Amino acid sequence: MNRKMRMGMIGGGQGAFIGAVHRMAAALDGQIELVCGAFSSDAARSKASGEDLFLPAHRVYGSYEEMMEQERGLPEGERMDFVSIVTPNHVHFGAAKAALLKGFHVVCDKPLCLNMEEALELEALVEETGLLFALTHNYTGYPMVKQAKAMIQDGELGAIRKVVAEYPQGWLSTFLEGSDQKQAAWRTDPARSGAAGAMGDIGTHAENLLEYITGLRIDAVCADLTAFVPGRRLDDDGNVLLRFDNGAKGILFASQIAAGEENNLSIRVYGEKGGIEWRQMEPNTLTVRWLDGPTQMLRTGVGPLHPSAQAHARIPAGHPEGYLEAFANIYRNFAHCLRARLEGRSADPLYADFPSVSDGVRGMRFIEKVVESSREEQWVRV
Amino acid sequence: MNRKMRMGMIGGGQGAFIGAVHRMAAALDGQIELVCGAFSSDAARSKASGEDLFLPAHRVYGSYEEMMEQERGLPEGERMDFVSIVTPNHVHFGAAKAALLKGFHVVCDKPLCLNMEEALELEALVEETGLLFALTHNYTGYPMVKQAKAMIQDGELGAIRKVVAEYPQGWLSTFLEGSDQKQAAWRTDPARSGAAGAMGDIGTHAENLLEYITGLRIDAVCADLTAFVPGRRLDDDGNVLLRFDNGAKGILFASQIAAGEENNLSIRVYGEKGGIEWRQMEPNTLTVRWLDGPTQMLRTGVGPLHPSAQAHARIPAGHPEGYLEAFANIYRNFAHCLRARLEGRSADPLYADFPSVSDGVRGMRFIEKVVESSREEQWVRV
Amino acid sequence: MNRKMRMGMIGGGQGAFIGAVHRMAAALDGQIELVCGAFSSDAARSKASGEDLFLPAHRVYGSYEEMMEQERGLPEGERMDFVSIVTPNHVHFGAAKAALLKGFHVVCDKPLCLNMEEALELEALVEETGLLFALTHNYTGYPMVKQAKAMIQDGELGAIRKVVAEYPQGWLSTFLEGSDQKQAAWRTDPARSGAAGAMGDIGTHAENLLEYITGLRIDAVCADLTAFVPGRRLDDDGNVLLRFDNGAKGILFASQIAAGEENNLSIRVYGEKGGIEWRQMEPNTLTVRWLDGPTQMLRTGVGPLHPSAQAHARIPAGHPEGYLEAFANIYRNFAHCLRARLEGRSADPLYADFPSVSDGVRGMRFIEKVVESSREEQWVRV
Amino acid sequence: MNRKMRMGMIGGGQGAFIGAVHRMAAALDGQIELVCGAFSSDAARSKASGEDLFLPAHRVYGSYEEMMEQERGLPEGERMDFVSIVTPNHVHFGAAKAALLKGFHVVCDKPLCLNMEEALELEALVEETGLLFALTHNYTGYPMVKQAKAMIQDGELGAIRKVVAEYPQGWLSTFLEGSDQKQAAWRTDPARSGAAGAMGDIGTHAENLLEYITGLRIDAVCADLTAFVPGRRLDDDGNVLLRFDNGAKGILFASQIAAGEENNLSIRVYGEKGGIEWRQMEPNTLTVRWLDGPTQMLRTGVGPLHPSAQAHARIPAGHPEGYLEAFANIYRNFAHCLRARLEGRSADPLYADFPSVSDGVRGMRFIEKVVESSREEQWVRV
Repeated sequence: MNRKMRMGMIGGGQGAFIGAVHRMAAALDGQIELVCGAFSSDAARSKASGEDLFLPAHRVYGSYEEMMEQERGLPEGERMDFVSIVTPNHVHFGAAKAALLKGFHVVCDKPLCLNMEEALELEALVEETGLLFALTHNYTGYPMVKQAKAMIQDGELGAIRKVVAEYPQGWLSTFLEGSDQKQAAWRTDPARSGAAGAMGDIGTHAENLLEYITGLRIDAVCADLTAFVPGRRLDDDGNVLLRFDNGAKGILFASQIAAGEENNLSIRVYGEKGGIEWRQMEPNTLTVRWLDGPTQMLRTGVGPLHPSAQAHARIPAGHPEGYLEAFANIYRNFAHCLRARLEGRSADPLYADFPSVSDGVRGMRFIEKVVESSREEQWVRV
Repeated sequence: MNRKMRMGMIGGGQGAFIGAVHRMAAALDGQIELVCGAFSSDAARSKASGEDLFLPAHRVYGSYEEMMEQERGLPEGERMDFVSIVTPNHVHFGAAKAALLKGFHVVCDKPLCLNMEEALELEALVEETGLLFALTHNYTGYPMVKQAKAMIQDGELGAIRKVVAEYPQGWLSTFLEGSDQKQAAWRTDPARSGAAGAMGDIGTHAENLLEYITGLRIDAVCADLTAFVPGRRLDDDGNVLLRFDNGAKGILFASQIAAGEENNLSIRVYGEKGGIEWRQMEPNTLTVRWLDGPTQMLRTGVGPLHPSAQAHARIPAGHPEGYLEAFANIYRNFAHCLRARLEGRSADPLYADFPSVSDGVRGMRFIEKVVESSREEQWVRV
Repeated sequence: MNRKMRMGMIGGGQGAFIGAVHRMAAALDGQIELVCGAFSSDAARSKASGEDLFLPAHRVYGSYEEMMEQERGLPEGERMDFVSIVTPNHVHFGAAKAALLKGFHVVCDKPLCLNMEEALELEALVEETGLLFALTHNYTGYPMVKQAKAMIQDGELGAIRKVVAEYPQGWLSTFLEGSDQKQAAWRTDPARSGAAGAMGDIGTHAENLLEYITGLRIDAVCADLTAFVPGRRLDDDGNVLLRFDNGAKGILFASQIAAGEENNLSIRVYGEKGGIEWRQMEPNTLTVRWLDGPTQMLRTGVGPLHPSAQAHARIPAGHPEGYLEAFANIYRNFAHCLRARLEGRSADPLYADFPSVSDGVRGMRFIEKVVESSREEQWVRV
Repeated sequence: MNRKMRMGMIGGGQGAFIGAVHRMAAALDGQIELVCGAFSSDAARSKASGEDLFLPAHRVYGSYEEMMEQERGLPEGERMDFVSIVTPNHVHFGAAKAALLKGFHVVCDKPLCLNMEEALELEALVEETGLLFALTHNYTGYPMVKQAKAMIQDGELGAIRKVVAEYPQGWLSTFLEGSDQKQAAWRTDPARSGAAGAMGDIGTHAENLLEYITGLRIDAVCADLTAFVPGRRLDDDGNVLLRFDNGAKGILFASQIAAGEENNLSIRVYGEKGGIEWRQMEPNTLTVRWLDGPTQMLRTGVGPLHPSAQAHARIPAGHPEGYLEAFANIYRNFAHCLRARLEGRSADPLYADFPSVSDGVRGMRFIEKVVESSREEQWVRV
């Protein structure tokens, strides 16, 4: 099948943030072509956005429903293969459901949707339809995250005892939603964001990352969520104690009032024999400490790394690969699996590696339980 | 009073760790002279230790009781001015009480003692006798810790919202107390260490540091303590959620099974306007982040710093000052105040700055409440 | 002109390194479309490469001469707008000259060509034809490099006194050209690489970077080039003292035998009032030091930055942008200027910012003078 | 010999900088006692300084000549064992010569003296008298410097190819000697500092450090010295190309106009198999890079280190040891060797490790040749 995979985008019109990120990520490797879009619920804005993107006018739609209907009617050699949903959270469910019901594969931004009911319905639909579904917990796309996961899976650290996952940001330290700031407005609005604020927006990234890397499942949480900024309707900060299914303990915190912090996601995992530390803002280094012996700095592209770490780097060591490259790994892997599907082949396991609808379900449950624990001021089983 | 202050040491004989640290810290600035000691409860070992330290035999004692008795009888121009207690925790109370009752000033290693009852008795004794008492929470002696405290006190960060204090070590990742390791043996023994293990040994350092820097008081804790290493009798890891008296929230963790970590005490404090980060292993840098604007690296000795930060550095910028220098600041300040006392002067407020018996009381209460919260699996008011 | 700019590629077939980098860089922003290519001098390999890239067979050529001839004949609505030359150095001159003579704009990998004669001929041709020409000294594409340049241009550091530019790599520490390693083979072959090895391959990047950032011109050099690895035909290490036109002094070194180094390009510039430091491997931080006052960490996307720094970042602070994004800035700026040209508009000065053929000429002269200085073991005027 | 070694100090009176450093360094380990001093050529100032240091008035002298004469006459159980010379450079020679002639061992600040003639005379005197002589090139006292030396000596990096030693400071960026600044005044005065400014003051530290670590000897230099600050009489910046006796190449630079730099001494050494990097401002880390494999962070006190690195650390890993501790290692080793000498024993080779008068001679020759090379603008054999 000598062609690129064809993507239709939902959301991501002029003024949006994450839509442009998805487009760059999809474009980077030359495996995906943007062929159509419903970029805004405002039809004029959608058209203008499509024009900016050099799309022909007839492939720019005023709603996702229209897009699916029209694309469905196009010849197979032309119509989109999958949708990419890059809207605020409250639209995810409807758009994803519609796509699955119309037979389109789906890439969806995180978190999956607004609540467990929606989440389970989507999970069931994916299972029924057998269509591909990727959730863009993009931080799992970094090569050194793959390396950490592989090392732990291979037992190099011994049994895991302690996990510390952090996601501090500072950009919501003031009442930004009181101004025109679009990103702040929907993220602090329960109707569009869901039951949690910072914990849903970025806490789920930390949760997904730690489960991905460690392979552990969270068994119980004790949370303390706070809305520090006067007038704010959702938590802008949350601290969580964690207990894992293997007896390990942990801490997870997410904050959007950690004044001066940029996007400082990090994770530390300690096992019986050693520990790893990874920081998203300097993502090409994985620090590995040992009980007795020199600390190692594993680096993207240097020396013997696990095949999964090698498979997710593009350029030689010392040429820093960043956020977009990690994001692009989700898209490249999705495109790889989609192509294999369309060609009737099995995907290479190295690339059949992107967050699934079930990761999304676990994320929704995490949000629900953290909110409950904070409200009840006690430990809650997950 | 043209002479050095005279110190008698209790504990710190051959094979001890922290005793040598205290001696170096006391010696560094040429203000204190070691004149006598009861270095071990084993009289022969005490003698041998005193000989190593070039002390005359008659000033080396077989017990602290003997030392106090004998020194008390020496002429004022000769006898010790204060004792330095550097034994395992269970000896602190008895030695400190005896010293206070005999009229000697006291420097005491942390934590203060074994329980609240002892703690309150010592606090009362210090008040009654009016003698000087310093507790060596040495990490508050670093210049950049002083700088952080001063900035927060002056309101440069605005109201404080979030605090994260960490103290990971890895050295107890194995059952070290099963071997002959003396440091491990007493620290994991409830009779000699107290109700908590890691939380008492290093958690209290983190607690003291965060209260010192922020000026806040801990209002409630929710803790999860664990003894990971099979056979261990006290926690080797603990995660704690914190609530402060001003509404701020926080996290404190202490671990001695964070495999590969050395002595990685750190603190982050976020206010309305900015945040600070300090890491003990690179102590001459204080990172200050602002809501919008360049991150600053304040450095020991560079540019306009608060007077308290300047007063606790000894050498020009770029000549790294470390753990012993910070420790020595406690001793130098103690000596300064003691000299002022002996000369009937007021101490310079810049130097009248070392942890007190009341800090020790708060530390003991912190241990007690954390242990209770973990046992009850719920929030506990402090 | 509602379409992407059309690129034809010369070189970059299967097994090449830099070709793929150029393609990702060109694709990232959705402004450029790869429409044709002469990917290899081996026609079969060129075809296979084109197929991998989903190009129609008739737009994949066996030689660049054929490509120019055929593309020239295509209707304007279809034919390529510019060529991207990504071959080993010895092909640059011929390909660039042919493109310019046929009326195609040019993006060319660095260094410009093999010697001064070729360089001056290309410079003259660009002037004559008035066509756009970009040389991919990609490191100038980083936002924090733009910031450094703007700060110095605005006099924030005062008059510049000292510059230290370094480019250590370690990958040629062994006789790699003795194996099948294609990248090593041509880079160590005078016929394909030119008069210098490491100094041409990466030393010119350092030279270009320092001239870009400081605005200074190198006035004299004193160089010491060495081929450390037995059997190597070109320098794999070089140390150079620099004197600048304003009286500043400097050091530049490039090495490919700095064992263990990845791609550690860095620059430090010191003026009367302060200094800056930038390191390519952590490119989103610009360290700024002042005579007296806190060191600042300027970060991509944080706080008030110069417009040129803002204009070359794509995503919010803390989402690391790397090598490909900087490389893509060259392409995006080139596409911006090309579009303006095709639409008869002036380019926005913020984006009219990419290395030119004259930068390439200066790079060739630098190589020539460094080689001469090393051979003569004395200072040489540039 | 159950007593401390007895030190008499020359220089280091009120207002001096390095004298206090020497005193702290000598005091730290409890092996040395300050018993007398000629702290200033101004007798009143000397007296006042001695009083500050709690010395009896009769052991505080108005000149070093007087001190030697008087101390010589004291009973052996009382008189000083060695002098510590901490004056500006121009006094070193006279004081050291007088001490040696009177039979006192010597610790002397660096550089050794003012010129080669003086240097060779001192070297000869040390040989003749057989007395101990230590030159305080204190940076060789760091544990991780010992580790680097041992690794290279053992061939772990293979044959050395490249060395980069840097010593940037910024404190002389302005005409500080025009004010009352005592440190600036003598360092920029040829009569008190010698033939070089920055190159003598700190360049010799870099030179000593690189020779100590690598075991190589400098064979030829090509230098470019500059006095940037108008009115300055000695170089405040210098760049030097190096050739070593084994064919290795290098760069050394020293600057006191590197605005914003504190005391950023660093060294990188690359061999056939790997490279090391050490930075004085974070001295407890030694970065070791390998041709292919993870970079290692060796840390003071962690894991298996060479015995010499272990022998020069005092406290467990993660408790940072700094400048004073490294400086104290010179004194502790000197005291160790002195005690062994006085007791008629051999010193432990691990501690018989401090810079010698011959290091000082090489430093003086380095200064001389660098100044000559810069003046002649050509390579000069050392």
